[in-house]
Amino acid sequence: MRSSGPNLSIALIHYPVTNKNGDIIASAVTNLDLHDMARSAKTYGVRAFYAVTPLEDQKELAGKLVDHWVKGGGARYNPTRREALELVTIRDNLQQVIDEIGEINGRRPKTVVTSARPQDGSVTYGNLRQMLKAGAPCLMLFGTAWGLAPDCLVQADIILDPVRGTGQYNHLSVRSATAIILDRLLGNFA
Amino acid sequence: MRSSGPNLSIALIHYPVTNKNGDIIASAVTNLDLHDMARSAKTYGVRAFYAVTPLEDQKELAGKLVDHWVKGGGARYNPTRREALELVTIRDNLQQVIDEIGEINGRRPKTVVTSARPQDGSVTYGNLRQMLKAGAPCLMLFGTAWGLAPDCLVQADIILDPVRGTGQYNHLSVRSATAIILDRLLGNFA
Repeated sequence: MRSSGPNLSIALIHYPVTNKNGDIIASAVTNLDLHDMARSAKTYGVRAFYAVTPLEDQKELAGKLVDHWVKGGGARYNPTRREALELVTIRDNLQQVIDEIGEINGRRPKTVVTSARPQDGSVTYGNLRQMLKAGAPCLMLFGTAWGLAPDCLVQADIILDPVRGTGQYNHLSVRSATAIILDRLLGNFA
Repeated sequence: MRSSGPNLSIALIHYPVTNKNGDIIASAVTNLDLHDMARSAKTYGVRAFYAVTPLEDQKELAGKLVDHWVKGGGARYNPTRREALELVTIRDNLQQVIDEIGEINGRRPKTVVTSARPQDGSVTYGNLRQMLKAGAPCLMLFGTAWGLAPDCLVQADIILDPVRGTGQYNHLSVRSATAIILDRLLGNFA
């Protein structure tokens, strides 16, 4: 992990998330989520990208996928993909991730969530950008399927404003939402 | 198509693009490119999303995929996905797309490209944002595989600054790059 610059990590949560009917489920790991989010994370200097699932077969699948690109044939075929996927760590649950980042930094990270729906007390992108500039270790959580379980939202330290476009439509993929949020928090352009 | 607001369309080019060795190729249509880019386009009020390929089998595949979500079982399963994929039109080549937008608007759109490498005479996101606010019809081109063929870059009216993150790594997926660019050009947040 790098020791200077904003101290942001991200986690892609596969449990607990909701399905279309609002039930709490464990979702399947999606190959392209790991690739796209790792590439975005690498682009914006994110320190670590945790893929969180308690399911043994999904952990194994994700592990094989990452190994292929970090140590296997993929690493030789496309070295820039290796650089991105080296950021990926697979963990059983969110608490493990929080504890791990806490140990590395000597203090517990603030957990940050977004929701497609506006929430009371949400902070702006500018607010969080300032906190990151000030060096606060933060862990941003992204939900798969129909989004993070309500408990995850309630327990988070910080609720970030929704990503809104120009109208009412708010159904970005998690891959696109991650890219946009990292650019808003860490990007620089004229 | 809508008649007010910025007049931006996007095109995902599958030919002519380059492969890893710099050869000009026709790439395969990727399911998730269409989904993610359609959802981003819908989020930011993009007027149309053209998938451009001259290959008959690829046109057929893309057509089936779009039909499933616009008219078939997918439309009933997930109506918000239908709203996004309704933006997708499949065309043989870039000239067709330019002509079509020209006919709709009564004037030829300006074509816009980005490149991962800095180019002479590139315009800033702020510049292009102002042009869009002023109502200029623009068509933004995105390349699949290893990027748009050099001829596409040379012939474009406008070269937009590269998407840069915080370091030297510049290997975003086309799905992520599209999301970030649309947010920079059309997004609003605090």
